[in-house]
Amino acid sequence: MPETLTPTRGSFAAWLEACGRQVEPALERACRSTSLALGPAKLRQAVSHALLSGGKRVRPALALLACEAHGGAAELALPGAVACEMVHAYSLVHDDLPCMDDDVLRRGLPTVHVAFGEATAVLAGDALLGLAFEVLAAQPDAATARDQAGLLAAAAGPAGMVGGQQLDLEAEGRALDVAGVAAIHAAKTAALLAVSLQLGARAAGADPAAWTAYAGAVGRLFQATDDLLDATRTTAELGKTAGKDAAHGKATLVSALGLEAAGRAAQDLGREARAALEDLPIERHRGLLADLPDYLLNRCR
Amino acid sequence: MPETLTPTRGSFAAWLEACGRQVEPALERACRSTSLALGPAKLRQAVSHALLSGGKRVRPALALLACEAHGGAAELALPGAVACEMVHAYSLVHDDLPCMDDDVLRRGLPTVHVAFGEATAVLAGDALLGLAFEVLAAQPDAATARDQAGLLAAAAGPAGMVGGQQLDLEAEGRALDVAGVAAIHAAKTAALLAVSLQLGARAAGADPAAWTAYAGAVGRLFQATDDLLDATRTTAELGKTAGKDAAHGKATLVSALGLEAAGRAAQDLGREARAALEDLPIERHRGLLADLPDYLLNRCR
Repeated sequence: MPETLTPTRGSFAAWLEACGRQVEPALERACRSTSLALGPAKLRQAVSHALLSGGKRVRPALALLACEAHGGAAELALPGAVACEMVHAYSLVHDDLPCMDDDVLRRGLPTVHVAFGEATAVLAGDALLGLAFEVLAAQPDAATARDQAGLLAAAAGPAGMVGGQQLDLEAEGRALDVAGVAAIHAAKTAALLAVSLQLGARAAGADPAAWTAYAGAVGRLFQATDDLLDATRTTAELGKTAGKDAAHGKATLVSALGLEAAGRAAQDLGREARAALEDLPIERHRGLLADLPDYLLNRCR
Repeated sequence: MPETLTPTRGSFAAWLEACGRQVEPALERACRSTSLALGPAKLRQAVSHALLSGGKRVRPALALLACEAHGGAAELALPGAVACEMVHAYSLVHDDLPCMDDDVLRRGLPTVHVAFGEATAVLAGDALLGLAFEVLAAQPDAATARDQAGLLAAAAGPAGMVGGQQLDLEAEGRALDVAGVAAIHAAKTAALLAVSLQLGARAAGADPAAWTAYAGAVGRLFQATDDLLDATRTTAELGKTAGKDAAHGKATLVSALGLEAAGRAAQDLGREARAALEDLPIERHRGLLADLPDYLLNRCR
């Protein structure tokens, strides 16, 4: 039986920290071992700025967690973990562009287009998206690589993250009801978080479809707490511009329901996730997966 | 033995036309059968505008040609053919953006950002890149899907197309020698054209590496003739803005060598391609592959 990263009864925060010690070196290795290493210097620097400037690495931690939950060794999930973080990093670079959310600060640092120029930022995002599939395709097991690439492409695409970003931009300045906001959250944020768990499950040889309900609820909870944080915290606390949802007239859970009811909706999503956990056919880490909704909710306390 | 699309002794122009009858419906099917069909309407329209507004479909035709050259049925190469055209279409959408080449006309139509706005153009390009891998991953043979995804990601990435575009932007207004221009051409254009042949070869179960020399020479010849066309034709003839290389101070074969010597360099690349053809371990289509350099050179006559 493979050694687990942490005891099965632990907090998700501790898991996240333990994962970082595997994930950060894996991200750095990916920058050296993929075709990025052969690219122009400025592009390499921009990609590294986007990928290696911190971040909580939630998506990689979810991939490792689901893999171990099915009895797989965490290392098996590293390509999927790295690929999800690359897609996440690319989406931030493109979302921050002047023609999109026009943001200058990310993780306490200048955004990629501020630091490297707009053209290089577009190309660095493009590069990261392609590199995610290069990393998946480098795996020795062809069926795992093929299945993970299909899952990731669908989650990142028009019915997932990219489509959600499109809906998010179209909703600016419009009053959306809670169902409209939930649809944006499901596509823009939940799809990639969910597929992180699913790539981990697939790395262990398990059926990713079993994770749909739990992963979807956790994903929407993540964006719900992001909406709450944007409305209640300062820029210094977040390391990115605070209050920008309201400033941009974004359709959020807070704009649809108000702060108090949005908080209750987030609690409901936490309960939904814990209920869905019952049906997961996993061997371990049930305690960590039960703690994950609380970890997300606690970000807002 | 599978039926061939055209006789082995034919012109590449006739092959291109014959391929179009398979490729256009395959591109339309890909828009309906992938997750694009589930995306927001405006994003679907922008992607269709980029992918289905004509174009010569050279890359798909190369994929089908290499597959048949190894004795494979052309249908086997369609996923790779569609994926290469999606990557090509995405690159045009992003290259046309105001922060990149800032172009308003493509194939005689408004560019995607002119027709749909800049944010949607960024997202439509992102969507097309991901869809390319979704199409590859949908193939029943996992090893083919995994290998093709790896080849395409590398060709489109920092050491290929995206890196070449970065170098191209950095070279604006600088005087590059012919070796510097050749390096940009190899990455910006040749890598994706070459991998189109290689994905076709892989679809037939052959070794893509055998195509490196021929495909690289044809790819560089393609960009060489593009440089010549930009310098010598009108916007109406091209269906895209003519003379923009000189207007942007781009590093091209024409800027490095002058028009006459650039023409001779293109002829040299044609000879290089025909020489490399001798070493290809193929069963058929040697005549078509020998005609391809002439087809490209004839574009400039």
